[in-house]
Amino acid sequence: MKAAYYTGNKRFTIESAQPVEPGEGEAQVSVSYCGICGTDLHVFHGGMDQRVGNHRVIGHEMSGTIAAVGKKVAGLEIGEPVVVRPLSACGDCPACRRGHAHICQNLKFLGLDTDGAFQQRWTVPAHTIHKIPADIPLEHAALIEPVAVACHDVRRSRLVAGEDALVIGGGPIGILIAMVANRRGATVTLSEVNPHRLQLAQSLGFRALNPQEVNVAEQIYAQTANKGADVIFEVSGTQAGVDTMTEAAATRCRIVMVAIHGTKPTVDLFKFFWREIELLGARVYEPEDFDQAIALVASGTIDCNSMITDVRPLDEITGAFEALSGSTPAMKSLIKCS
Amino acid sequence: MKAAYYTGNKRFTIESAQPVEPGEGEAQVSVSYCGICGTDLHVFHGGMDQRVGNHRVIGHEMSGTIAAVGKKVAGLEIGEPVVVRPLSACGDCPACRRGHAHICQNLKFLGLDTDGAFQQRWTVPAHTIHKIPADIPLEHAALIEPVAVACHDVRRSRLVAGEDALVIGGGPIGILIAMVANRRGATVTLSEVNPHRLQLAQSLGFRALNPQEVNVAEQIYAQTANKGADVIFEVSGTQAGVDTMTEAAATRCRIVMVAIHGTKPTVDLFKFFWREIELLGARVYEPEDFDQAIALVASGTIDCNSMITDVRPLDEITGAFEALSGSTPAMKSLIKCS
Repeated sequence: MKAAYYTGNKRFTIESAQPVEPGEGEAQVSVSYCGICGTDLHVFHGGMDQRVGNHRVIGHEMSGTIAAVGKKVAGLEIGEPVVVRPLSACGDCPACRRGHAHICQNLKFLGLDTDGAFQQRWTVPAHTIHKIPADIPLEHAALIEPVAVACHDVRRSRLVAGEDALVIGGGPIGILIAMVANRRGATVTLSEVNPHRLQLAQSLGFRALNPQEVNVAEQIYAQTANKGADVIFEVSGTQAGVDTMTEAAATRCRIVMVAIHGTKPTVDLFKFFWREIELLGARVYEPEDFDQAIALVASGTIDCNSMITDVRPLDEITGAFEALSGSTPAMKSLIKCS
Repeated sequence: MKAAYYTGNKRFTIESAQPVEPGEGEAQVSVSYCGICGTDLHVFHGGMDQRVGNHRVIGHEMSGTIAAVGKKVAGLEIGEPVVVRPLSACGDCPACRRGHAHICQNLKFLGLDTDGAFQQRWTVPAHTIHKIPADIPLEHAALIEPVAVACHDVRRSRLVAGEDALVIGGGPIGILIAMVANRRGATVTLSEVNPHRLQLAQSLGFRALNPQEVNVAEQIYAQTANKGADVIFEVSGTQAGVDTMTEAAATRCRIVMVAIHGTKPTVDLFKFFWREIELLGARVYEPEDFDQAIALVASGTIDCNSMITDVRPLDEITGAFEALSGSTPAMKSLIKCS
């Protein structure tokens, strides 16, 4: 089989590799499609070399079918369509013991800490597998993992129908959060600077604002009769986004911290005190978020065709990563692996 | 009657004034004791001149007895001991309409936005009055307002018995939070730099750490088997405190923002994402927090005698404020008004 190895220095090499036989409690998946995540891009640009090394198959936003099953695995049939929830927890740390295995203190993320899905056959622990309905196109199913991220973020926010939501940052996760929040009955506004992404958000029916052109907080206050946003998702990872999140917040607003802030921004903690705002960190997903994401993709609630802007074969993976660097009309790029 | 007016420039003047007759829905309270709050000190040092002006009776941590009752006030008898919850909400803003009147967007704080309790007779809206048991000494009852702050902070944290709590900052509010959290069954550690306050915390039975001598986060991890603190109260208002709050946090820790941060500190938002930490702003109190505070003072759970380190007559108010400036062994100073 073919596998794409990240070998450092903005390069993948396509190598011929032996599929890993599934051991006890494991299953081997024939990978159909695997999307390129922001984290994968971060790897490509050298930002995670210490963690992934220089000979690693990355990738985790995948869909596929069961190719082989190891011993002591029940309920998986060859050929069944599946997705993988790429988390392996230790089961024994304080976080695991309190029921938060998805943020285990020794978490292994499949496709970063172990080999991932940019290959034709991927062997994973069977407990990470979610079966999907046969009528979901496998291209669409590759979006289930990022949709599960959005489901987790929206669940953390405790959003209820009728609330005003602001999504700061309109990349793939921001757009998916907007879709999930909209489905829950929120009035969604999205803030984004990239004109392509602004246009996509508008075409999907969201109120989309460019913070370089308008004061987003003022707009939110104007459109909510001086209340502010009930729920805010900070997905931009920027100081400007962090400023906006406190400026646009309603009293008792729940702000979900989705973005990965590599440097420490300044934060208006006075505003947190004054208006009893909440900040809620949100990372990856729990099994129920995957279940919900599968249901949302199956029902057509997530407009997968608008999200998928590029599909390339595994051989062209380096080009696909290069095309995603910089301001681009692309939203979600898939690699066709098998 | 006598009233102490803050007249700017670190001065009070004691003036003879006419008690305000209680109008419809109001009551006049004979003020027994009124404590000096951190906010009052901030006024004294000129930090709130724009808000309070230069002829304002401040003070709100009070106890007293009903002296007169206006029309359409039921259930208050002359001579009954009471405390005042010094908040007047508009009733019509988005926060009030959602049931958060204590952080009304147009909130008037009695004793800042209107005249307060550093006078012999104080006329207030009757709905702000809580009756207290006759057997609470009126000196102790003057602590009910700051105890209600602590009750609100602990309630916001969702603390449950058996959890590890860290209180960053051991001034009066920090110590009261530690007492209330301890009463709820938490194991409480307190971080404080002032040696007098460290000693008080230790004498009250708390593990007290000086962050200038030990690494507080390392200590917390060592004493919780690598879990971290389940609940953290940031009461210091310092950059160092804000750094410690993320460093010492357990996975899914609830951090309560009690302090008033006048400048925007840098915050490790990555840690919020990575460990799904929560930040919860907490301001003043709701009626149930006052009810709980009254019960805690009445039952002796709050060690009022350890907290009250100074009692002076109204005539000596300026000296009492001066004595609280700088590092001092004092904890809570009361003014005897009547």
